[in-house]
Amino acid sequence: MTEQQQPARTTSGHHPTSAAAGTRLDPWLGSYADRTHAMRASEIRALFAVANRPEVVSLAGGMPFLEGLPLDDLAELAARTVATRGLTALQYGSGQGDETLREQILEVMRLEAIDAHPDDVVVTTGSQQALDLVTRIFIDPGDVVVAEAPSYVGALGVFRAYQAEVVHVPIDADGLVPELLDETLTALRAAGRRVKFLYTVPNFHNPAGVSISLERRPRILEVAARHGVLVLEDNPYGLLGFDGEPRPAMRSMSEEGVIYLGSFSKTFAPGYRVGWAVAPHAVREKLVLASESAILCPSNASQLAISTYLQTFDWRGQIKSYREQYRDRRDAMVDALAEHMPDATWTVPDGGFYTWVRLPDGLDAKDMLPRAVTARVAYVPGTAFYFDGTGSDHMRLSFCYPTPERIREGVRRLAGVVRGERELVELFGTSAGPGRDSVQAPGPDLA
Amino acid sequence: MTEQQQPARTTSGHHPTSAAAGTRLDPWLGSYADRTHAMRASEIRALFAVANRPEVVSLAGGMPFLEGLPLDDLAELAARTVATRGLTALQYGSGQGDETLREQILEVMRLEAIDAHPDDVVVTTGSQQALDLVTRIFIDPGDVVVAEAPSYVGALGVFRAYQAEVVHVPIDADGLVPELLDETLTALRAAGRRVKFLYTVPNFHNPAGVSISLERRPRILEVAARHGVLVLEDNPYGLLGFDGEPRPAMRSMSEEGVIYLGSFSKTFAPGYRVGWAVAPHAVREKLVLASESAILCPSNASQLAISTYLQTFDWRGQIKSYREQYRDRRDAMVDALAEHMPDATWTVPDGGFYTWVRLPDGLDAKDMLPRAVTARVAYVPGTAFYFDGTGSDHMRLSFCYPTPERIREGVRRLAGVVRGERELVELFGTSAGPGRDSVQAPGPDLA
Repeated sequence: MTEQQQPARTTSGHHPTSAAAGTRLDPWLGSYADRTHAMRASEIRALFAVANRPEVVSLAGGMPFLEGLPLDDLAELAARTVATRGLTALQYGSGQGDETLREQILEVMRLEAIDAHPDDVVVTTGSQQALDLVTRIFIDPGDVVVAEAPSYVGALGVFRAYQAEVVHVPIDADGLVPELLDETLTALRAAGRRVKFLYTVPNFHNPAGVSISLERRPRILEVAARHGVLVLEDNPYGLLGFDGEPRPAMRSMSEEGVIYLGSFSKTFAPGYRVGWAVAPHAVREKLVLASESAILCPSNASQLAISTYLQTFDWRGQIKSYREQYRDRRDAMVDALAEHMPDATWTVPDGGFYTWVRLPDGLDAKDMLPRAVTARVAYVPGTAFYFDGTGSDHMRLSFCYPTPERIREGVRRLAGVVRGERELVELFGTSAGPGRDSVQAPGPDLA
Repeated sequence: MTEQQQPARTTSGHHPTSAAAGTRLDPWLGSYADRTHAMRASEIRALFAVANRPEVVSLAGGMPFLEGLPLDDLAELAARTVATRGLTALQYGSGQGDETLREQILEVMRLEAIDAHPDDVVVTTGSQQALDLVTRIFIDPGDVVVAEAPSYVGALGVFRAYQAEVVHVPIDADGLVPELLDETLTALRAAGRRVKFLYTVPNFHNPAGVSISLERRPRILEVAARHGVLVLEDNPYGLLGFDGEPRPAMRSMSEEGVIYLGSFSKTFAPGYRVGWAVAPHAVREKLVLASESAILCPSNASQLAISTYLQTFDWRGQIKSYREQYRDRRDAMVDALAEHMPDATWTVPDGGFYTWVRLPDGLDAKDMLPRAVTARVAYVPGTAFYFDGTGSDHMRLSFCYPTPERIREGVRRLAGVVRGERELVELFGTSAGPGRDSVQAPGPDLA
């Protein structure tokens, strides 16, 4: 975005349709693949530039709060990894990932009752890459992915990039509703559509903050199996529950029917970009081939850093510390919502990073966003989490990164914006009242 | 491969077509995308398991020789990065890559006369990811990529994964032949084919060891521009020339007609998985969107490690040291070939990692490979470097990783295998003589 505001630089080159002076036409516009026309900037990513300004309270991003990490100890760990295992850390590695790390990942997953073999695990560049690889090996253009309504914006972006169609299934306070899943899959089959997989975030859902109840998990697996549909269980937040023990993963109940995605980004740190997939044997082989084609191999430097961390640090204690920290922030968030925005409704998550807020009738979270940023608070409008761009009556508020005090201040600012919107609605019947166009002039991405 | 030799584990799960006891059928075989059927294990990757055995002299892999790196200093650097910039190193970053690193990359590229802006650069998970992203945004199934004959196996794998068709153009001692490129593009246009880009490794070609002469570079750009074809300049080895200064990159001669790919894997270390692309403005925007969809963002930990390395180390001195080291090994390789394999012919590279050997008439490098491994020497048969699997009269020998002494020993062993093959050819008219089937029993991937 920033580039578009710069003076166009002069261009050289032999291509006959090179950009004319003063504009920047794309000489390769006619050369892109079909899938490229479906790519567009995620509303979350576009917000980053704004949300990073210090005066804005960002309730938008999903960045974990890392300031509690023992950086000096981690520095010592990084040094030891390079000094003692540098020739491995700095070299190419296996496409599937470091074997020791894959064994340690099994230990992490045992907390969610998963029993697997190191051969079942593929290490990826964050679990986002695992999402990309699974979609790559399964989706032809026009295939259907069934996903919760709403769904993680980054997953929807991947499905869109591979030209899938996403059909949403409603959720409630206990997560995905098995009966509605069954109805949806039955209708899709009747319509002759090819459904390749069900995408679900079963724990502390992004953005909705709910979890699939224990009772529903086997029922969802039964419905999916009956329709011949693979389950893609995306679980970055499962160990970040605020109360009680982690729920058993869907993967713990089905070895052949589930691809499970995990990540160290939320339980440790995202900067290493280390996630993983656990897949049925034959699928795992395809994932490794696809990953070798995409990146040759994941970073040994990152993998060995994580492996040494798991071996030498109290990683369970660190997760406990994260849980307590995020619980305090969740409390700050829902208390502030109750105090300042009594006319909205919201989920009260028992883990993870997000609450899902329904605005009072007549308000549009996407339209309101520029005014919110002007009031120095940012969030993600619900439209980002629906494949068809509906969901404008909702917003996602994240409580992971700002301090409790900042969260309260952010909600207070947001409530002021909502009050202003409601006054517009009462006066004009819509919030698209006077000043709307000029305020929106920078466009929905707030560039 | 190893898994297939293990006893099948019992499987659970609800899917109706779960694997029967004792076999491992793929219950999802009918669900894969079309592109997945085109994925297959690269002959190089499959060789890794064998080539890593200490008794085998591997002239197969492309792993750089890292033992000259100052690991203690690098360890201290890693510690400092985490201690002083840990909250950035461990956090999510920009999809396009760290801005400081992008500025430093400009400094590296200035050695090849490239004049660019930090906004033109996209940092990727190794330049393999850049290859994947470029192919992703340009290639629809059935589109044509024009590439040198032979071409880097990992690029061919990416093109195959996106269902491109690769049309090869011959090269000679001065690299890609402009007239033959022109003829090929003209014929493809006459046949109504959509050619999306020309893929070339202009310096110290993998596998052929040759470089495109200075005189040919603008001519190739002119031909490509006249046909409306983008040039994908893949340049991991450009700074590893044994004599003289680096050649100006094709990107230095055309800003709008070239996507340039660079990498730290060969000039520093591959374990961080940091490469980059430089692309025309509009293409760069698409690459960033595609990369965010694929991995969200490259690893900040890796990027900051590289950035600190470039800032605090004599990285030019390290490259000089690599050049001297690889020149010694190149000398050992070509001397040994002259001594032991006078009936073969080979290129004498003035940089990079590889020489390209043509076997005496009647020999087949792919058929011979199992016997070579039995004789404790490994290489990559030429067939890996042609889209249609031709090239069996050639082999790629890499001199990057083994010591000069081991290289001489490897070539000596290889010469013994070649002699044995020639005796078979003389006796039977083909090397597919007695014992061939039994020796080949483990299959071409030597599992």
